Amino acid sequence: MFKQHPTASGPLAAFNTADAVEHLNHLDVVEATRLVAQVPPARGVRLLEQPELTDAAQILQRLPPAQASTWLHAMADDRAADLLLALDTDARERLIAALPVVTQQAMRDLMHYPPSSAGSLMTTEFVSVTADQRVGDVLQHVREVERERETIYAIYVLDPQTRALQQVVTLRRLITADPDAPILDAAQTNPPVFVTPTTDQEEVARLIRRHDLLAIPVLDPQRQLVGIVTVDDVLDALIAESNEDVHRFGGVEALDRPYMQIGLLAMIRKRAGWLSVLFLGEMLTASAMQHYEDALSKALVLTLFIPLIMSSGGNSGGQATSLLIRSLALQEIRLRDWWRVALRELPTGMTLGAILGLLGIARITIWQLAGFYDYGPHWMLIALTIGAALLGIVTFGSLAGAMLPFVLQRLGFDPASASAPFVATLVDVSGLVIYFSIAAAILGGTLL
Amino acid sequence: MFKQHPTASGPLAAFNTADAVEHLNHLDVVEATRLVAQVPPARGVRLLEQPELTDAAQILQRLPPAQASTWLHAMADDRAADLLLALDTDARERLIAALPVVTQQAMRDLMHYPPSSAGSLMTTEFVSVTADQRVGDVLQHVREVERERETIYAIYVLDPQTRALQQVVTLRRLITADPDAPILDAAQTNPPVFVTPTTDQEEVARLIRRHDLLAIPVLDPQRQLVGIVTVDDVLDALIAESNEDVHRFGGVEALDRPYMQIGLLAMIRKRAGWLSVLFLGEMLTASAMQHYEDALSKALVLTLFIPLIMSSGGNSGGQATSLLIRSLALQEIRLRDWWRVALRELPTGMTLGAILGLLGIARITIWQLAGFYDYGPHWMLIALTIGAALLGIVTFGSLAGAMLPFVLQRLGFDPASASAPFVATLVDVSGLVIYFSIAAAILGGTLL
Repeated sequence: MFKQHPTASGPLAAFNTADAVEHLNHLDVVEATRLVAQVPPARGVRLLEQPELTDAAQILQRLPPAQASTWLHAMADDRAADLLLALDTDARERLIAALPVVTQQAMRDLMHYPPSSAGSLMTTEFVSVTADQRVGDVLQHVREVERERETIYAIYVLDPQTRALQQVVTLRRLITADPDAPILDAAQTNPPVFVTPTTDQEEVARLIRRHDLLAIPVLDPQRQLVGIVTVDDVLDALIAESNEDVHRFGGVEALDRPYMQIGLLAMIRKRAGWLSVLFLGEMLTASAMQHYEDALSKALVLTLFIPLIMSSGGNSGGQATSLLIRSLALQEIRLRDWWRVALRELPTGMTLGAILGLLGIARITIWQLAGFYDYGPHWMLIALTIGAALLGIVTFGSLAGAMLPFVLQRLGFDPASASAPFVATLVDVSGLVIYFSIAAAILGGTLL
Repeated sequence: MFKQHPTASGPLAAFNTADAVEHLNHLDVVEATRLVAQVPPARGVRLLEQPELTDAAQILQRLPPAQASTWLHAMADDRAADLLLALDTDARERLIAALPVVTQQAMRDLMHYPPSSAGSLMTTEFVSVTADQRVGDVLQHVREVERERETIYAIYVLDPQTRALQQVVTLRRLITADPDAPILDAAQTNPPVFVTPTTDQEEVARLIRRHDLLAIPVLDPQRQLVGIVTVDDVLDALIAESNEDVHRFGGVEALDRPYMQIGLLAMIRKRAGWLSVLFLGEMLTASAMQHYEDALSKALVLTLFIPLIMSSGGNSGGQATSLLIRSLALQEIRLRDWWRVALRELPTGMTLGAILGLLGIARITIWQLAGFYDYGPHWMLIALTIGAALLGIVTFGSLAGAMLPFVLQRLGFDPASASAPFVATLVDVSGLVIYFSIAAAILGGTLL
């Protein structure tokens, strides 16, 4: 990202990089490839390096083989590995075979890390020096290698013997330090913060934010520096993660490209799965209703409030879930805190339930007294039933919605898989049971 | 963020900054203030500068006045302004009055920008030089001012006459360029990307990502440089925004601190508002049900499927909304694209509705033929009613859920205010009308 590139020329010369990418995204792959093949190498590399270029891998594959392999070699190696991974095996092996042996190895190393791990986000194009050098020598070295490195704003100082990471020097300290001082004099005082190749990208983002870094080193078990993750890659990862969280909370599988660029069939597939699962779960409400059919036929008035009561349970559950999945994702709350959360949700849910319960009772009382509707001689008992049911269901909804993310995390799933409709479905069936049980207790002997 | 600070000593000496903040967050304000007051000034400033320190403003207010104003002056001024804004008017004016006059003015300028605008995120501690200087002079200047600037990785080159922003030079270009060359030789070739003080933080984040910047300049209408927004502030803003989006989608007002640190009453207030509004909206379902009471009493079997059908409408609406609010937030889709989205949601919703409709028909057929339940002689017509209602409601839900964010944006609201329960409530009432209308059409003359 931090590299400078020469002035553009060729068919896309009128655009800056970001606009050129947008332009290419609106073309089909064949036409986009034709344009990209004609731009100067530095610009072509820069274009293919943009994560926003949706067809980058396809374009790379269609370029003349010699051009493709030269460009691939010139590219930031984390991005090159991502592009290779997006190709089918044949095309990938063909392109890798054309690379210099050292790069081939780097590519294969980068490609074997799990997606959304530090290993898959990292670049191996960092600046490292040994701890026995002086500030002036390091600055000279940085000047020489600048063009080939993704960032030079953090310089990694290695132990001269073991080559393990010893310290980090920022470029701002380097340029202000005495050129004759040992490089370690310009280093930070705290031990360097680092991650391992398998660290999840959310944890990487959390550490970069927490320690205000421009890049974080990735170390293997021997504390050897295998790569760095830069803040711009983390920004991209965070945006992707944030999309994914909102989509999943809405009950959709995460989309891998913008809404308008997804085919109709793919879009339906992403949505039909969850929608059908939820539908099958929600079918239990039909069974529950059948079970209470007798009560329903005796007191049809009870049906009038079913949508109102059920949606209140789902809404309060969704609120609690949305709060907890973010707190768990940001590690503000740990798995072992579940009982603390439960102890807070219980009084919260009861108060919210009481508020809605009073609103419900007011609704029935006003309608009855104003003559909008006649709930019959037992209207006070009906109002009491609705009020009590709301108290019970909202309390249960808040508690269930808050506990669901913990249960999912405990079972090894991402707590963010707890979507709003998932919670609503969970609460709906139990909500019906609560409603009819309360109705039986209050209205037994009169209406039921 | 990019500043170096001397080694820690004092009561929190054992902790690095991030851990010290976590430790302080677990103490009450009085005890936290006592500890912070004892650390060396540079460290105290650094601690109060951390956005993660939840009680920072309260601690600042309780420090001895002289210490508070010295530290405030030493702090990054964007953070200082944020802290001042969090105080009550008396305490704020008292602290501002104790600052040097120049800083007073900078604080007042920063404080009057709307929250989550570039103006409120920006710092005025940037490095600027005039275009008539040479690379070597600029490098020397950067070395001299380094300690007082938030970032030195981007250097802003101003027109010597108008002092308008002319170009941006990155530190990596500066250190590799010929010291005798004019500074503009080291500048980027594209015109600088910039924002204005009122630009929203999401747009700032989008531009920083899109152009891979470490900082973006903030210009007034005369193209004078009034500040810069750095990538670390954007990261923090993005995390806050992402929390807010998930919370709002779940129907909760955004929380300003972590879940566990919010008082019970504040928590209830954040949730009761929306929950009550949704409840009042959902009351319309009770009115709709009253309207169809006649049909219900004739065909009680219709009530059995009400929860199932309504939740399917809400779920499909929530899916569409979650997709569109992210696309609108990332500007993948603009307001004028609404009809393109509608044209996609129509076939998508119909297909999804057909899938659920077939599942519903299958459920009734299996239960009837296997003898789990007897839907009566007209069970086929009932199955057809349920299938057709699902087709209609899921199509309507997808379309309404997709259009709602556009409507909100058009009305000047944030499209992300379209929460899952909001959509569900919207779809529930219309869903009942669709259901009973279809029932009347199909079952009229037999059951109804």
